[in-house]
Amino acid sequence: MSSKVTTELLKQLCQVMRSSKHITEPIQAYIVPSGDAHQSEYIAPCDCRRAFISGFDGSAGTAIITEQNAAMWTDGRYFLQAASQMDNNWTLMKMGVKDTPSQEDWLVSVLPEGSRVGVDPFIISADQWKRMSKVLRSAGHTLVPVSENLIDVVWVDRPQRPCKPLITLGLSYTGVGWKEKITILRLKMAERKVPWLVVTALDEVAWLFNLRGSDVEYNPVFFAYAIIGINSIRLFIDGDRMTDPAVRKHLQLDSTLEPEFKIQVLPYESILTELQAICTGLSPKEKVWLSDKASYALTEAIPKVHRYLTPYTPICLGKAVKNEAETAGMRRAHIKDAVALCELFNWLEKEVPKGTVTEISAADKAEEFRSQQNDFVELSFATISSTGPNGAIIHYKPVPETNRTLSMSEIYLLDSGAQYKDGTTDVTRTMHFGTPSAYEKECFTYVLKGHIAVSAAIFPNGTKGHLLDSFARSALWDTGLDYLHGTGHGVGSFLNVHEGPCGISYKTFADEPLEAGMVVSDEPGYYEDGSFGIRIENVVLVVPAETKYNFKNRGSLTFEPLTLVPIQTKMIDVHLLTQKECDWVNNYHQKCREVIGAELERQGRHEALQWLLKETGPITRMQ
Amino acid sequence: MSSKVTTELLKQLCQVMRSSKHITEPIQAYIVPSGDAHQSEYIAPCDCRRAFISGFDGSAGTAIITEQNAAMWTDGRYFLQAASQMDNNWTLMKMGVKDTPSQEDWLVSVLPEGSRVGVDPFIISADQWKRMSKVLRSAGHTLVPVSENLIDVVWVDRPQRPCKPLITLGLSYTGVGWKEKITILRLKMAERKVPWLVVTALDEVAWLFNLRGSDVEYNPVFFAYAIIGINSIRLFIDGDRMTDPAVRKHLQLDSTLEPEFKIQVLPYESILTELQAICTGLSPKEKVWLSDKASYALTEAIPKVHRYLTPYTPICLGKAVKNEAETAGMRRAHIKDAVALCELFNWLEKEVPKGTVTEISAADKAEEFRSQQNDFVELSFATISSTGPNGAIIHYKPVPETNRTLSMSEIYLLDSGAQYKDGTTDVTRTMHFGTPSAYEKECFTYVLKGHIAVSAAIFPNGTKGHLLDSFARSALWDTGLDYLHGTGHGVGSFLNVHEGPCGISYKTFADEPLEAGMVVSDEPGYYEDGSFGIRIENVVLVVPAETKYNFKNRGSLTFEPLTLVPIQTKMIDVHLLTQKECDWVNNYHQKCREVIGAELERQGRHEALQWLLKETGPITRMQ
Repeated sequence: MSSKVTTELLKQLCQVMRSSKHITEPIQAYIVPSGDAHQSEYIAPCDCRRAFISGFDGSAGTAIITEQNAAMWTDGRYFLQAASQMDNNWTLMKMGVKDTPSQEDWLVSVLPEGSRVGVDPFIISADQWKRMSKVLRSAGHTLVPVSENLIDVVWVDRPQRPCKPLITLGLSYTGVGWKEKITILRLKMAERKVPWLVVTALDEVAWLFNLRGSDVEYNPVFFAYAIIGINSIRLFIDGDRMTDPAVRKHLQLDSTLEPEFKIQVLPYESILTELQAICTGLSPKEKVWLSDKASYALTEAIPKVHRYLTPYTPICLGKAVKNEAETAGMRRAHIKDAVALCELFNWLEKEVPKGTVTEISAADKAEEFRSQQNDFVELSFATISSTGPNGAIIHYKPVPETNRTLSMSEIYLLDSGAQYKDGTTDVTRTMHFGTPSAYEKECFTYVLKGHIAVSAAIFPNGTKGHLLDSFARSALWDTGLDYLHGTGHGVGSFLNVHEGPCGISYKTFADEPLEAGMVVSDEPGYYEDGSFGIRIENVVLVVPAETKYNFKNRGSLTFEPLTLVPIQTKMIDVHLLTQKECDWVNNYHQKCREVIGAELERQGRHEALQWLLKETGPITRMQ
Repeated sequence: MSSKVTTELLKQLCQVMRSSKHITEPIQAYIVPSGDAHQSEYIAPCDCRRAFISGFDGSAGTAIITEQNAAMWTDGRYFLQAASQMDNNWTLMKMGVKDTPSQEDWLVSVLPEGSRVGVDPFIISADQWKRMSKVLRSAGHTLVPVSENLIDVVWVDRPQRPCKPLITLGLSYTGVGWKEKITILRLKMAERKVPWLVVTALDEVAWLFNLRGSDVEYNPVFFAYAIIGINSIRLFIDGDRMTDPAVRKHLQLDSTLEPEFKIQVLPYESILTELQAICTGLSPKEKVWLSDKASYALTEAIPKVHRYLTPYTPICLGKAVKNEAETAGMRRAHIKDAVALCELFNWLEKEVPKGTVTEISAADKAEEFRSQQNDFVELSFATISSTGPNGAIIHYKPVPETNRTLSMSEIYLLDSGAQYKDGTTDVTRTMHFGTPSAYEKECFTYVLKGHIAVSAAIFPNGTKGHLLDSFARSALWDTGLDYLHGTGHGVGSFLNVHEGPCGISYKTFADEPLEAGMVVSDEPGYYEDGSFGIRIENVVLVVPAETKYNFKNRGSLTFEPLTLVPIQTKMIDVHLLTQKECDWVNNYHQKCREVIGAELERQGRHEALQWLLKETGPITRMQ
């Protein structure tokens, strides 16, 4: 990788920071966070402003530019990449490393007295603003919102904001029509006596209106906001997407409708002025509901007395609990996904020994098999196809410079998934095409024990995911091993592969209580730097559990695997399994045989079916 | 229980709330929290102001008195007790019950516009103040500190603040002298560049100076504050305690000392003016370290720019990690405690069949046996001696009205502990003197499995206790059972039986990472309302664990039981145990035999020794 030359760009930016054409009063520093106006995890090219100004295109990082300095904060995953992508104008600030100053502290140390620090108020979240503003203020500086994005001023060939066609989803996919969703939402608003709600997260807008898009790679979302009133609906969306007859029909834009379901379509950019206008008309006790993760610009548009902030909107919570149609869709999607992976693994078993398969070609082949399936839309994230030491890089994505050939002597880890019109998948399998060492099998088996411990756990209704995290680690901990990531994340229904508000992690954020219908991943791992990586991931559905007793009538929950892809038994040291764990593996493989076997048969994929049957034979603990 | 007549008292209090003699401007409401100026869990009689004004003497509750109303907030443990102890002047506010208003919301709903709400700034913590003040202010009211406690004005026969003699602890008990502790503390202060630290928690003052007291029942502490400067020590303490030659010698008050170890003894009440004086002399960048749980009065005395607040002081963190002398002392204390309990259980086995033993007499007998042990000081909390349905009341304390006779047909639960000069104990055993039912055994065995799962857990250095909580519940969860309390709390070394900053709970507060030398309890339970209660509690020491591998060189930890009291094998359904669990029980009992057996022998307690040997025979899983 070569670094981007940024001298001229930074000079231009500094000029803009002083220019009365773009800013009322000069600023002495400008903050460029990652992210877009919707606080999305994945962003569109037009929003990659931090990458444009610095050259560093990792998924996490914040740039700050002053007259004299340019500094980049990023975490351990990206130290090497950032250092190689940025030129000498930039100072790398290694987050999590002792003595690295925080952004605020650094600003205080380099700025002249009474400085003004600018930031785009749509890109920074309200809570980040609050934290930074407090420190700057106490040191005599001011954090100021700069409404024109100053990177955009110097970014002459900045891509357009994507404005791709929309997909409408019928009741067979969504289970609940958008009008019914709005009605349920309004009930929640009435319960809290809040007459207005602002929807800022892209997946929440998509879910609410049963629409999907492709403005952001991997995430079937589109750029839009919505404001839901007790009697009105405003949708802020650009382009000619609303001229599509299918969309007009879906949203009933040309029908005679009860006025409370009439959608007022407004330009994307008008959200702020429209929200301000709504707030002007509020009576003293009326509130506006907004996620506390929303942008500073929208939060600030609501006068403090009218703000009703919660960590999650009722849309986020409703979206997390999949209904019957969504659950059925997720099952279908996972069956198709398993078919594609059986084809892939069968192909790999034949091709790897020839020495012609690389991490990239394997990933491409996986995509090819997936794309043959019905209702396939795109991948749900960049495929992690890694062998040998690359497997130990948790967020690895093969590129030509690192591309490694799959072999008979190294562990291969494939973490991949897809968007189908009926559901989103995310699955990791770890395999060996030759003979794994005893140590590799031992580690794999501990990871498997952890996977099973979570998957088979029974726990009370309303348990938070963080309480299950240790179950995944216990077998590793017993021998002094561990892995440095969470155990699971929420998964959307033909939506983002990572979604809130639930998960399974030692971290206690994004941790709303689990309830039946939620979908999360179960993905413990073990990584040996420079040698190999192991991860076993299923997407699992939270389901009611039958128990002998029922304390305080609370009811119990457990998980049902939606992912039905064989777990390589060759990698298992059966002596390390309990009988219960052994039974779990055999039952799981029996279900793979039945469900995926039938589908492979139906699709006439006989070779893959033979592979499935071979891989799902029962294992036994030798006594 | 009969209710206290409070009509006259409340009238007097309302007069005081308007009286210019006691308050500069009338207040319309007065808040009376539980607790003292040190935010102690256990309080002295002179600090039981909420109980005095209302009659309700449970451990948790907040009273608010306005011209027209008197209301009491308390939690589910105390609904019945509060209702029966308070007269009609009082409205019971059931916390945790839907539609119960918060204190702030209630105040807003009953107060006339622009009201002033008073509270003793020493009794309310800074964070409680902040929360309440914010809500009141946004509704147009003001929270005001009232420096004279208004309850004390109307409480004519209020007890004196206790001022009992002090105990000095030598190096054999503490391992580290107070001067060395001060030196270590000053290093921590220097690391953070903070020249001053205010010590407000009573157990922190006691630990720092290697002194103990008896001002508060069950807690060997004394009323005092300290302010540690880089070059000075101020101890705020009342009475003639500093005239005791042993104390003077211990603190070297009459010796020629390096000036930085010279203790300036000041009156208890002068803490505020002294702290204010210190703050007046601070240079702009100098800070004063204080726990964020300290009182509003002391927090507010430090100008905001000079405040350095952390959840825990370095004293709290240092105190939690027991050194070798403290660990050895804890071991000795637990051996003596086990001797006393072996005597008790042997006695109970003989006496219970006669039908003459009650919950109260059993508790008294336990205290009698404990008091025969060397260095016994007092109990460490009110003994929970409960049989049958009383066992299901988690914080039960037998009183004549509820006192039940122990029988051959009911489960007996004893949760008790003591303060010895060398350590603090806290142990729960559950037993049956006749034949337990299959269901009782089943539940007991699930609780035991949970106890073992925590006790035998191996986990990485620095793991937080909340990550271990589910291990204690897993066996119960599997059958739909659970218990509604945390699994463990920190235990002091001849100090408070509940101490921060670590614990094992599904709640994530008081949850600093576990490290070797910390001492916590392991006490899962199961409670069937109206029938029985089961709890198995050991105090355990965090110790390094030997593991096969050592991921990232982090090292691993596990627990070593300090409590060595037999677990009644009659209550165990061995078929529900794994071989590993069976081995754990047998190893534990083997250690009880060896260690406690030797001590019983040494003390010539032959009958109790026979009982111990009988109770610790190995169990086997019938194949």
